[in-house]
Amino acid sequence: MHPLDEALDLRTVAPGEFAGATHPAYANMVGPFGGTTAAQLLQAALLHPARLGEPVALTVNFAAPVADGEIRLVARAARTNRSTQHWIVEARQADETVATATAVFALRRETWSAGEAVMPAGMPEAGTLQRMPVRGLPAWPQRYDMRFIEGAFPAVFDEQEQDHSRSCLWVRDEPERPLDFASLAAMTDSFFPRIYVRRRRRSLIGTVTLTTYFHADSALLAQVGTRHVLGVAKALNYRHGYFDQTGEMWSPEGQLLASTHQLVYFKD
Amino acid sequence: MHPLDEALDLRTVAPGEFAGATHPAYANMVGPFGGTTAAQLLQAALLHPARLGEPVALTVNFAAPVADGEIRLVARAARTNRSTQHWIVEARQADETVATATAVFALRRETWSAGEAVMPAGMPEAGTLQRMPVRGLPAWPQRYDMRFIEGAFPAVFDEQEQDHSRSCLWVRDEPERPLDFASLAAMTDSFFPRIYVRRRRRSLIGTVTLTTYFHADSALLAQVGTRHVLGVAKALNYRHGYFDQTGEMWSPEGQLLASTHQLVYFKD
Repeated sequence: MHPLDEALDLRTVAPGEFAGATHPAYANMVGPFGGTTAAQLLQAALLHPARLGEPVALTVNFAAPVADGEIRLVARAARTNRSTQHWIVEARQADETVATATAVFALRRETWSAGEAVMPAGMPEAGTLQRMPVRGLPAWPQRYDMRFIEGAFPAVFDEQEQDHSRSCLWVRDEPERPLDFASLAAMTDSFFPRIYVRRRRRSLIGTVTLTTYFHADSALLAQVGTRHVLGVAKALNYRHGYFDQTGEMWSPEGQLLASTHQLVYFKD
Repeated sequence: MHPLDEALDLRTVAPGEFAGATHPAYANMVGPFGGTTAAQLLQAALLHPARLGEPVALTVNFAAPVADGEIRLVARAARTNRSTQHWIVEARQADETVATATAVFALRRETWSAGEAVMPAGMPEAGTLQRMPVRGLPAWPQRYDMRFIEGAFPAVFDEQEQDHSRSCLWVRDEPERPLDFASLAAMTDSFFPRIYVRRRRRSLIGTVTLTTYFHADSALLAQVGTRHVLGVAKALNYRHGYFDQTGEMWSPEGQLLASTHQLVYFKD
């Protein structure tokens, strides 16, 4: 079984209440990778018997450090309409809320469709690039095959401030795994903190909130399969202890799969 | 009293539970302007006696049409840490949830700060531009003084599809009102639906979720006062019944006050 599927293997303990656990394969320096926690929160709604359609939006609020070990997920459909459904999910450990999420699910229909953003042009193919070395990194980056075109994780923290923090990379699960909503949700949290790219200086950081819009439906995700997707990320602003980062995930054919935004706490 | 302050004048009916009402001055074609609902949801957390610090992030999920009339707001601090606090707020009418929100509040500290996005250069000053005519529009756009530089609300819906939906405008409350978190939250929903700008074709639309990050603290908002702020907006993608829009609000001095994203349902 793929380690992500092990992390997503939640057990129903009561109506709308699921038990799972953090997974050592997705450990961060302290506690689990937030992307895996985001995927578990989404999974609780995906597994709920009252679930309608597919996710179109997910917001995860990281309320407190998640400890290694068991995690309880409580999912409630706050409102179900004919073609949309609104979820509130809470992640709890030791009777305290460690994360909250809201999600919008929908039954999609075929409509006029068009891109407005376009995938960066002229990118080298994933197969022509080297995978980022992961030796010495925490477990979670070892669960991704990342091939950077621009804005790699700094090889040295030389405190040479850069004038931007843009990154562009091909990324897929490692080992390979067919892309689905849960893995895409996790992947949208896999961009390294922009402040590291910008400042090349270590600082304590923590994502406080993450929002991902799923432009893809499951049919489009199935077309991507186990191939790499192109991720681009940047920051808009750093101010008084918080910065944002914004990202896009593109299919190899140039379809926007997801757009994502997060707000990150930092300490000088 | 300013009509927005009337809309935000919530009455405590139980611990964490507030009663308010939609305001005719912010009526949309059907029901109230979503920005005012977003501001009311935020206001419930702002008024809560347990509130810590200032908002840094707000996500509002528009779960169902809001009816004109009374609205109940139930705010709960899901987690309070030393410098951050996570809120879940629900808006209810006739015992049904019509909107949910999560918000992150924080005590900010002075840190290294830097912009990465920059305000569009060379914009004409607000005073040199004409206000958008509001005759014939619903009440809510009459509560904003909007002065477009690019991407105005289409004067005619001639179905001439445009190749982008970018807008750039100066905007402030009308009548004037000093900018604060609640009014800024409302204003981040004041960008007209991108699909109207792109397609110049009428279609049924409804925002399903809106996320706003407050890069400004209250001191910076006070510096803006009652002046116009520069809003820029665009869309990334339109697909199978949903499109996103993304926006930035800039102070006249070029400070990023807020960045905002929403996902919008549309019908062909």
